[in-house]
Amino acid sequence: MTNQIRIAVLGASGYTGADAVRLALGHPQLEIAALGANAKAGSAMPDIWPHFTPYKLPMLQAAADIDFGDIDAVISCLPHGTSADLLAQIKGPRIIDLSADYRLRDAQTYADWYGRAHPVPDDLPDAVYGLTEFARHRLPDAELAACPGCYPTAALLALLPGIGDGIVSPRNISIMAMSGVTGAGRGAKEANLFAEVSEAAHPYGLAGHRHMPEIEQELSNAANTDVTVSFIPHLLPMNRGELETITVELAEGSSTADLRRCIGARYEDEPFVHLLPEGRAPATRMVRGSNHCVLNVFPDRVPGRAIIVAAIDNLVKGSAGQAIQNLNVMFGLSETAGLEQAPLFP
Amino acid sequence: MTNQIRIAVLGASGYTGADAVRLALGHPQLEIAALGANAKAGSAMPDIWPHFTPYKLPMLQAAADIDFGDIDAVISCLPHGTSADLLAQIKGPRIIDLSADYRLRDAQTYADWYGRAHPVPDDLPDAVYGLTEFARHRLPDAELAACPGCYPTAALLALLPGIGDGIVSPRNISIMAMSGVTGAGRGAKEANLFAEVSEAAHPYGLAGHRHMPEIEQELSNAANTDVTVSFIPHLLPMNRGELETITVELAEGSSTADLRRCIGARYEDEPFVHLLPEGRAPATRMVRGSNHCVLNVFPDRVPGRAIIVAAIDNLVKGSAGQAIQNLNVMFGLSETAGLEQAPLFP
Amino acid sequence: MTNQIRIAVLGASGYTGADAVRLALGHPQLEIAALGANAKAGSAMPDIWPHFTPYKLPMLQAAADIDFGDIDAVISCLPHGTSADLLAQIKGPRIIDLSADYRLRDAQTYADWYGRAHPVPDDLPDAVYGLTEFARHRLPDAELAACPGCYPTAALLALLPGIGDGIVSPRNISIMAMSGVTGAGRGAKEANLFAEVSEAAHPYGLAGHRHMPEIEQELSNAANTDVTVSFIPHLLPMNRGELETITVELAEGSSTADLRRCIGARYEDEPFVHLLPEGRAPATRMVRGSNHCVLNVFPDRVPGRAIIVAAIDNLVKGSAGQAIQNLNVMFGLSETAGLEQAPLFP
Amino acid sequence: MTNQIRIAVLGASGYTGADAVRLALGHPQLEIAALGANAKAGSAMPDIWPHFTPYKLPMLQAAADIDFGDIDAVISCLPHGTSADLLAQIKGPRIIDLSADYRLRDAQTYADWYGRAHPVPDDLPDAVYGLTEFARHRLPDAELAACPGCYPTAALLALLPGIGDGIVSPRNISIMAMSGVTGAGRGAKEANLFAEVSEAAHPYGLAGHRHMPEIEQELSNAANTDVTVSFIPHLLPMNRGELETITVELAEGSSTADLRRCIGARYEDEPFVHLLPEGRAPATRMVRGSNHCVLNVFPDRVPGRAIIVAAIDNLVKGSAGQAIQNLNVMFGLSETAGLEQAPLFP
Repeated sequence: MTNQIRIAVLGASGYTGADAVRLALGHPQLEIAALGANAKAGSAMPDIWPHFTPYKLPMLQAAADIDFGDIDAVISCLPHGTSADLLAQIKGPRIIDLSADYRLRDAQTYADWYGRAHPVPDDLPDAVYGLTEFARHRLPDAELAACPGCYPTAALLALLPGIGDGIVSPRNISIMAMSGVTGAGRGAKEANLFAEVSEAAHPYGLAGHRHMPEIEQELSNAANTDVTVSFIPHLLPMNRGELETITVELAEGSSTADLRRCIGARYEDEPFVHLLPEGRAPATRMVRGSNHCVLNVFPDRVPGRAIIVAAIDNLVKGSAGQAIQNLNVMFGLSETAGLEQAPLFP
Repeated sequence: MTNQIRIAVLGASGYTGADAVRLALGHPQLEIAALGANAKAGSAMPDIWPHFTPYKLPMLQAAADIDFGDIDAVISCLPHGTSADLLAQIKGPRIIDLSADYRLRDAQTYADWYGRAHPVPDDLPDAVYGLTEFARHRLPDAELAACPGCYPTAALLALLPGIGDGIVSPRNISIMAMSGVTGAGRGAKEANLFAEVSEAAHPYGLAGHRHMPEIEQELSNAANTDVTVSFIPHLLPMNRGELETITVELAEGSSTADLRRCIGARYEDEPFVHLLPEGRAPATRMVRGSNHCVLNVFPDRVPGRAIIVAAIDNLVKGSAGQAIQNLNVMFGLSETAGLEQAPLFP
Repeated sequence: MTNQIRIAVLGASGYTGADAVRLALGHPQLEIAALGANAKAGSAMPDIWPHFTPYKLPMLQAAADIDFGDIDAVISCLPHGTSADLLAQIKGPRIIDLSADYRLRDAQTYADWYGRAHPVPDDLPDAVYGLTEFARHRLPDAELAACPGCYPTAALLALLPGIGDGIVSPRNISIMAMSGVTGAGRGAKEANLFAEVSEAAHPYGLAGHRHMPEIEQELSNAANTDVTVSFIPHLLPMNRGELETITVELAEGSSTADLRRCIGARYEDEPFVHLLPEGRAPATRMVRGSNHCVLNVFPDRVPGRAIIVAAIDNLVKGSAGQAIQNLNVMFGLSETAGLEQAPLFP
Repeated sequence: MTNQIRIAVLGASGYTGADAVRLALGHPQLEIAALGANAKAGSAMPDIWPHFTPYKLPMLQAAADIDFGDIDAVISCLPHGTSADLLAQIKGPRIIDLSADYRLRDAQTYADWYGRAHPVPDDLPDAVYGLTEFARHRLPDAELAACPGCYPTAALLALLPGIGDGIVSPRNISIMAMSGVTGAGRGAKEANLFAEVSEAAHPYGLAGHRHMPEIEQELSNAANTDVTVSFIPHLLPMNRGELETITVELAEGSSTADLRRCIGARYEDEPFVHLLPEGRAPATRMVRGSNHCVLNVFPDRVPGRAIIVAAIDNLVKGSAGQAIQNLNVMFGLSETAGLEQAPLFP
């Protein structure tokens, strides 16, 4: 086990942290050296995650008790706020952060949406927004990768090629998103009880969801103009999976076929992003448990508009999987290491 | 049991037919006199619907064997095509049809979307499009009520007030719809197996769903101009429930608050359509098993647009319940008779 | 609304309380006069139960603020402990208690299983164990009906006829029970989150479930000998529904057919308990949302044993529905009043 | 890719076949050389299994068109009957059969339960009943491994140690089993529709399930006496997962603790079978998507009896995973190759 990259997973008592552990267990070059989870410090992993019973894993520790001098990479699955406060104090390991704390370039935007001044605004410029497919050139030198939110991951994979090529208009983008309930975390809330979620669907965050500024930031960069999007998430009665059905206006002279070709060309060589055959609708069941994203493009009935549909597993490509993918690129490993397992269906 | 209205339910072996039977059993003025289901003719209802074991019900018969001279009202839950072919031959009872056969005013539009010439085009003008809340004046004299599709029911309840009052622009209406799987019927199809639907979500009908022309017909009538909508249905892992999240452009000078007031005023006295308190998102679990529709209006992030959200139970307000509601109005009964039971939650 | 029976539902913020309200809304002779829920006192019902939005209901009150002098019947859906402490102080209304506090005849058994001395042991002898089908003669004079637990309801309906007639041996009774998650209440616990319950099944209470002494008490009474049962509940990924598959030894000389006949005869005239046709397996979907119980008997492969299967809706026949049924008998109403709605399937 | 073992998966259009493909894709020493599926011959895998879109796989072929001379191992996921008829004709590759055709030692028992004479009764003696943990010594020389049914796998892992050691009495064994719906296959049957299975649970196969003789055969062998078991399977609303709650009588002088120790000792070094810490109940969510089995032992309330609970994923340890495990042992590979991925939870 020499030359293994030693990682610490912080927030290992949450769903995202647990999925990072699951993937790291199957990664040939990662060694799980420490697991952080303040409230559960002192517990064995199988006591809070019985599905890890067959696996040898470190005990959960308070982050303060972890010897980061011994760690090569930190995968931080802590909530926003907590994450930056802690990560700012860790020197040595390179960091893959799954919180929102390093995603926004502008500290004021962060303050507006997250209701607190950013604790380390000077660290923002060097953080790399880790949508791997669009950050590959910057990741090898990055000290910190800020993994995109789950919704932005699917939205940006769907929209960036067309926006970047000028085929999609930056105006009137409508993102209808649907997510399984693991996106809401393992906290014991009435709203996430089985009996409340099962046999039910509803929109939420209608007054403004925190993934919106992130989507707008990246689309604005790509479009070289300020982009405002409509983004409406819905909660669905399933564990994993995220579907986005996005309506866009096509640029003058561009067709749905152009957009489909553009997206197909952009991702032709990507290991994890796949344009489906014409006419086949992406479905969350196609990617469950895997790091894949499936995409397709359809004509809208309203002339001049097109529909892009994208599906990911919110816990994998939408968080823990993309974190590993970023780590792989940062450390010069094969980008697909530890992420090759096929989706679990049914 | 004198003065009871004697009904025949055709298509009683399907989910919609069974729900019509469920509701009719609780209706104080209806007597279920005959049940039609050709393929299952000769079966007892509990043999194909064991949940009716405790109830006395007629045997299933071939429609041809039903004595319609003895029937006051037919609730037809047959598929399109079959429905008009059969109903055109029935003389005597008044008809509540849940198929698509009498919904479109224009026989050519029917032919375009359903791939067959309409068998009785001359009967179309007299059929009443039975969105009860907007058809109440015509139903008492109607010989045939064509109940709206489940998706159009929610879409039209959400859109007609604003369109009718000129608050909502008839352009760029986007209807994102999500439905439980009962909408697809009881046919044994691989796509509707538990293992295919569970833990999954995907859009379908992207090339054009047959509920679209119906929505456009009614919106065009209300707007006095041709309306083209974008309508994208999704299949969700649940039995019942339909949610529509609709993005609209507001007419010049109108605000989200204006639209919310307009909708609130329109439905203030309606027994089955309810504007929720400001900020509360409609959810399918609020209406399960009931004839209610819950609605609300939200500002969109894109200026000049608003979001309307509507939830119904696709099998009740979206089909069997609305059929009973129409029957009640047609026969001068209390409109809520048989439909008063509260939603089943959880 | 004269001659209505005025009821107070205590614990109206829980699933059982809400289902009692649902059923009472459809009951022609009940008037919901007060709703108790201490932690939510001051809330409107639709604020905690949005599915009641269309219905006029009293505000939630602290139990201490309810004027019980004005109430004819109290349906108490409070947890054990809380229930007896409160109910013991209420004078005037007749009481239907859904907690465990008045179910056990023996105060010591109560203390053993519930970990506290019974607060009013002298009230136990007069409380009627309200398994309606077996308590009908005592309920009209009862001041307090102690509704059976959900598991005992199904188990006793399945076992009492055969035990009472000496066809089933009182030894080696094994009750395998499965329940939807609403049985665990609306409390926000990690174990009941959608993501923990969905796609999952497991036994619980293996060290001894509190419904066991109740089952044994009633079986022992019927058998005139001490009966010890094996009872193993399982949590299933569904909202409502309870299934019990019970293995029994047949008494010398008795056959499975004898047992099936005995059960059929016992329930022939019962409105809510139904022996299915030979060979048809009871399923929870047959009773969802209704007060019905479906039963059947099968030969076991081990000679001399038989299998009894029973299904109920844990929130209806297993709690709120049986409470209304008991109230009906106590007040001399039609036993089925308010309980006639057919099951909701799908 | 030299020295790879070239496999053909027959029945690749079913759930079991697809899961064999999923696992083989992650196996470092297997090469999927051919995929058989008669009805779907000529299809590409992603056309019938879109979750395989990102993977290069052979086209589906009719079994008759596969060149078995080029194949080292056949994993046959065909239904019983079809399987033996086909496999008997294949010469060359070693065979891992997941059907029931080679599981029973006695051709007459096969005929009794499967309603047909066994086509190749002379081949039965050499087939190895492939419950890997108990067949390891015979598999390296086996030409054909008959993988146990999913229910027998869990039942035998739970029972064989105690039976073998004389701690568990061979009499009065009661196996209550619960399975997700994938066990019923991908055939389009009404009974397996989402709307029929969701929010529902029921027993089936009460007249005798075909997994019974297999369980009895192996228990009888271990006990050196004829064993008759009670076995009652239930269908649960979930995709994957199988839970068995087994009640046994302890041999004179043996205790629950003895049984727990016996099982713990037997599986101490097993990579896929795990005794949980005392008091922790096995749950299907602990093993989802993995080849693990979790077990535990509890005292029963009835003196002299104990409860053994086992959970597996029916598609993995219950079929495709155990097939790969057997293949690994047959070919001298690491037994865990391709099976190391951690369970997917949630």
